[in-house]
Amino acid sequence: MNAQPDWFKILTDCKNNVEKAIKPHLKTLNEPYPDLGKGAGGDIMKPVDLAAEKAIVDTLQNYDISFSLISEESGFEKYGNTPEEYYITIDPIDGTTNLLRGLPFYASSIAVSKKPVITEVYAALVTDLYHDITYIAQKDKGAFRDGEKIKTSQVISLQEAVLGMDLNTYKVAEVAPKLTDLIQQTKHIRHYGANALELCYVANGLTDAFVDIRGKLRTTDVAAGFLIIKEAGGVVTGIDNQPINVKLDPKQTLKFVASSNTKIHQTILELVKP
Amino acid sequence: MNAQPDWFKILTDCKNNVEKAIKPHLKTLNEPYPDLGKGAGGDIMKPVDLAAEKAIVDTLQNYDISFSLISEESGFEKYGNTPEEYYITIDPIDGTTNLLRGLPFYASSIAVSKKPVITEVYAALVTDLYHDITYIAQKDKGAFRDGEKIKTSQVISLQEAVLGMDLNTYKVAEVAPKLTDLIQQTKHIRHYGANALELCYVANGLTDAFVDIRGKLRTTDVAAGFLIIKEAGGVVTGIDNQPINVKLDPKQTLKFVASSNTKIHQTILELVKP
Repeated sequence: MNAQPDWFKILTDCKNNVEKAIKPHLKTLNEPYPDLGKGAGGDIMKPVDLAAEKAIVDTLQNYDISFSLISEESGFEKYGNTPEEYYITIDPIDGTTNLLRGLPFYASSIAVSKKPVITEVYAALVTDLYHDITYIAQKDKGAFRDGEKIKTSQVISLQEAVLGMDLNTYKVAEVAPKLTDLIQQTKHIRHYGANALELCYVANGLTDAFVDIRGKLRTTDVAAGFLIIKEAGGVVTGIDNQPINVKLDPKQTLKFVASSNTKIHQTILELVKP
Repeated sequence: MNAQPDWFKILTDCKNNVEKAIKPHLKTLNEPYPDLGKGAGGDIMKPVDLAAEKAIVDTLQNYDISFSLISEESGFEKYGNTPEEYYITIDPIDGTTNLLRGLPFYASSIAVSKKPVITEVYAALVTDLYHDITYIAQKDKGAFRDGEKIKTSQVISLQEAVLGMDLNTYKVAEVAPKLTDLIQQTKHIRHYGANALELCYVANGLTDAFVDIRGKLRTTDVAAGFLIIKEAGGVVTGIDNQPINVKLDPKQTLKFVASSNTKIHQTILELVKP
């Protein structure tokens, strides 16, 4: 048997290689906005995502790790002789639109587990690629930002809180009314357009919660962020206040509320309509 | 009579001095979240705003300029012997909550006019204080980012567009239904929490429009951004497609749609309910 891999080192290497791989894709000032095609919904966005994915896969293979890849981009792929040994769940670029437009919010997200289940994730990294800030966590060992331990905020009042919320959906007519009471009582709502990174903002105490009840976000976006929030002292549940224990799968979606502390979590859950 | 002041130089000096003045107020990693008081709604946020305002006033006075100050912070104040010569409309810190929480989005906004009317603004600066990126415009002379000329995007489809939108209001139950059709057809909606800066994102082609129909945003927030967008090729009107020609006043609010081009502007106006 191999020794337990040093995931802190491996994941950090992955993010260093992602940073190098995406450089040719970054927008420079006054470069024309990218041609995203007509209605295809992201097909032409793929080169940067695939470059980032390849950087992660290559790095893991350089460490001789066998793994099953669960990726927002390429779905489910097996690598090495014993691909059931590790499950690597990634969103190579979270916030691709931001990256392509030059908006300074996009990240890379990598989660490691021994089983393809979100509660089994035990090592995770999310890197804010624009600012080169890395959030990392290992189960029961805490969450860190660039090596410094981080913790969630203790804000409990929605009047003081900053709350992330994703409303981007064609089903907004159905989703928005469920959130009206919450929006009405929350003074500061944000959406930066990179959900994995916005989960790290909760972990780091920059915001106090992130709410996504569209049923559209995938496990690949949140697998790493959930561990980082929990290890920083936060709480993540479904809108029914039950633990989220879904399969890690490129097509698996979920609804959730991620909060900095249990008090504000309860306040939010009471205001979100099922 | 004095020669016409060099507003490019003066406004740049203002922003340099704002940057110095706010340094002691910036959040460092793991510093406790700021105590914003109980329900006071921003009273304790004031020191950083006032420090920034003082930096702007002091800079203008060092240039021996007489002016009337129209400020989000201190209201209406007169300086010098001929205070009706110039009107300086400022939001010393746009995005104070972001600054205090460590979120990397806050700006300083300064607009210059000879009359206290928003259409009369002829020189404007907005600085992204976190990233030290300065947007500046002078009437009929174009808009610039750190000295390089910028222009708005030519994106016309809401399927491709990135749209900024401010929904933070206790009247959300009244405002949200008017935006449902627009949200439904827009793929990427953002809110970064610093409206003056988000107007510059439109000017710079990072986003394609910014919509605020709450009737809550003040002229102090947008006086500079409107000129910067227009000089970059964009368009700003009320939701009735009429020009916005309101008084510059700390209490004056407005509703508007600011777009990168007339085609997407029309598309948005058709979807926003009055």
